[in-house]
Amino acid sequence: MSDLLPELVKLLGASAVIDGEEAVRTGLARGRLGAPLAVIRPASTAEVATVLRLCHERGQAVVPWGGCTGLVDGARADGAIALSLQRMNRIEEIDAEGATMTVEAGCILQSVCEAAEGKGLFFPLDLGARGSATIGGNISTNAGGNRVLRYGMMRDLVLGLEVVLADGTILSSLNHLIKNNAGYDLKHAFIGSEGTLGVVTRAVLRLRPKPVSQNMALLAVDDFAHLPRILRNLERGFGGTLSAFEVMWSDFYKLVTTPPAKGRPPVPHGHAYYVLIEALGGDQDEDATRFERVLSAELENGEIADAAIAKSKDECARLWALRDDVMQVGQNAPIFTFDVSLAIGKMQDYIAEVQGALRARWPKMTMMVFGHLGDGNLHLIPGVGDGSAKAHREVEDIIYGSLRRQGGSVSAEHGIGLEKRDFLSFSRSPGEIALMRTLKKAYDPRGILNPGKIFEAA
Amino acid sequence: MSDLLPELVKLLGASAVIDGEEAVRTGLARGRLGAPLAVIRPASTAEVATVLRLCHERGQAVVPWGGCTGLVDGARADGAIALSLQRMNRIEEIDAEGATMTVEAGCILQSVCEAAEGKGLFFPLDLGARGSATIGGNISTNAGGNRVLRYGMMRDLVLGLEVVLADGTILSSLNHLIKNNAGYDLKHAFIGSEGTLGVVTRAVLRLRPKPVSQNMALLAVDDFAHLPRILRNLERGFGGTLSAFEVMWSDFYKLVTTPPAKGRPPVPHGHAYYVLIEALGGDQDEDATRFERVLSAELENGEIADAAIAKSKDECARLWALRDDVMQVGQNAPIFTFDVSLAIGKMQDYIAEVQGALRARWPKMTMMVFGHLGDGNLHLIPGVGDGSAKAHREVEDIIYGSLRRQGGSVSAEHGIGLEKRDFLSFSRSPGEIALMRTLKKAYDPRGILNPGKIFEAA
Repeated sequence: MSDLLPELVKLLGASAVIDGEEAVRTGLARGRLGAPLAVIRPASTAEVATVLRLCHERGQAVVPWGGCTGLVDGARADGAIALSLQRMNRIEEIDAEGATMTVEAGCILQSVCEAAEGKGLFFPLDLGARGSATIGGNISTNAGGNRVLRYGMMRDLVLGLEVVLADGTILSSLNHLIKNNAGYDLKHAFIGSEGTLGVVTRAVLRLRPKPVSQNMALLAVDDFAHLPRILRNLERGFGGTLSAFEVMWSDFYKLVTTPPAKGRPPVPHGHAYYVLIEALGGDQDEDATRFERVLSAELENGEIADAAIAKSKDECARLWALRDDVMQVGQNAPIFTFDVSLAIGKMQDYIAEVQGALRARWPKMTMMVFGHLGDGNLHLIPGVGDGSAKAHREVEDIIYGSLRRQGGSVSAEHGIGLEKRDFLSFSRSPGEIALMRTLKKAYDPRGILNPGKIFEAA
Repeated sequence: MSDLLPELVKLLGASAVIDGEEAVRTGLARGRLGAPLAVIRPASTAEVATVLRLCHERGQAVVPWGGCTGLVDGARADGAIALSLQRMNRIEEIDAEGATMTVEAGCILQSVCEAAEGKGLFFPLDLGARGSATIGGNISTNAGGNRVLRYGMMRDLVLGLEVVLADGTILSSLNHLIKNNAGYDLKHAFIGSEGTLGVVTRAVLRLRPKPVSQNMALLAVDDFAHLPRILRNLERGFGGTLSAFEVMWSDFYKLVTTPPAKGRPPVPHGHAYYVLIEALGGDQDEDATRFERVLSAELENGEIADAAIAKSKDECARLWALRDDVMQVGQNAPIFTFDVSLAIGKMQDYIAEVQGALRARWPKMTMMVFGHLGDGNLHLIPGVGDGSAKAHREVEDIIYGSLRRQGGSVSAEHGIGLEKRDFLSFSRSPGEIALMRTLKKAYDPRGILNPGKIFEAA
């Protein structure tokens, strides 16, 4: 092991190899990223292959790093080579006619979105960490975010991949075609497997035409039972252009619309639920008219209690800013963050059960709830006045225990990493986990790729 | 081996086991399905598991059968146990609120679509064989069809699967959630792998709200260069509601609009290309007005030469009937069928090159061309007056040879089966094929599942 770093310096140059202690001291290995043996910053796929070949020979653990914005300790790299893709951040090609973009894995999501927009196109993935998350990280976690309802998750936005396998083999599968059934579709194993089956180095992304119109509103709803009906009515009435249906429970809405938060309430406090909706269409005037008409019908039939329609791009941006101002939950610190999914029909009971159990244990607890309801995805952020590992585990037992009974998933969009590993079996059967291990063993027989993430190392 | 059939009779009952000779004699093993050892018709997942467990023990090849409507000899079963899923055809659950449907693999596609419609919902997969193809077959081939542009391929319409693995293990992964990142998404290995990695027995399908409006037209276009621009303009102008963009080359259009075909030309013959377009939206009157306005603009700016807009459901059905009347190509028999994809920007050169090469070899050749242009998918149906295997191979060499140079795929939506196996390497690199074999070996170490399909048995 001891000669690994000098050898990497020889092969990649000194600037690409940062000693672990230095990485911790300079903040490169910050927060919960652990104490890596070293951080390696390759500049090319060939260099990634070089690193993996060496580490494979020596059985050295490797943890791929993108923007390190994950929330489940998927990039924790104690004693491992942290393989940072951040230098590989070129946008290599935009094919406007074919509506594809080829990028290196270290590209920042926001740069990709802006580059698409510059060509009159649209890359629909959107999430809070857009300014620092990388495309490679989005792929390895199968990122979700705000517009899954309309455009799907990251998996649905990727056409092709270049991946370096555990032994350093470069797999080039840079498909540009929407339809390609020539044998197994290999990319799917790498999407959402959190760097445990290969290191993504390059991707071909599918772009869409840039929407011509954007219409948004904030709705107030008094009864949970109305929410799924409103969702279906809007999907139908907007003709498939509904792109976001983000529900905020009243406590969260109050938090992000009350000082010290900068936002102000577009509709008054006092309702049970608030829904941010967005439709992206083809004609601003006509779509706005229809948007108002469909919402008016929902107001008249009593499904919606109140609504504020955004009248300009600025007002749209301000609505998104409310939903994005998740930082305000820090007011309740110490807090824990949860990302679950379950059937819409079970959400109300689920939240009531969890709140009841938390309150019984910690009478002064707070719980912020919001989520991408159209996809069955909820974020729960409880604060129980105790940030200890013991309290965390107690809260997990309550939140995941109830979820297990409701048939939900312990991870909707954040992945499993280390944090949720003990709860994987709440959402996956022994047979499913056994097959995951079969796949892991086939792709990474020496177990060097992000070992111990998702499930324990063999 | 000899005691396998009596044992299966004992375990599954005599009615579930049909001797191979009888299967051939009665037409159960018809056409190009080969001469199976026997056809087994299990009634449940447990029975599928029983069959596979026995066959695994004995190293007996098993070929899964759905509706047997495939076009690439993917179900050919010489000497194998043909495992027909057709008795497992129950629709088990429709969750209208969650917009999901759980079905057995032997369900007919059309029954699924009708059952969804009965609940005010919509299952968007649509293809010519809808009346006999099964959901299991659609999954194993990752079926495409007419509405991929808007709704994706079968892969995008499946939420969860139950699969019996090669050794008889039942893998239950019947996810109902749109977002579920709890470990590897195991279903993708089974979708599009043509029954070589497992036998799909049950699926959870994602449904959509039933579209309120349908607007269709047939366009005439004189210059190929206009087609991608029209496509992008309609995608943009219709605000994402464009659901089909089916291009017919003039010879094909003439064939399906001239006796003995029943269809008549909605716009006159004499143009180079004809495009069937469909938009599915939320308001019939408003959407029809916009549909006409967007098309008028395309007529005025000269992109479209002529257009006939369907004015009723009947007229919509008649337009689809033209596109669906693929049987007319039989007039040119003997013919060969091809299904390829490539970048739109390369299609014109590609077709010209192929036509030139075929004509140089067979001056009286015919070639019908049509396809889902919005997805880069073309169907080519050449007739060279010679249906021999030798002529087939010569035609393949021309069509795939040119495709290889253009970077296309030898299979857009039909799969590889036996027919395209020799050409897999035209669209996939040695590294990709090696990884496919790694996967095959991990999932089916004894190589009993549909052996020799996609690539040669190890």
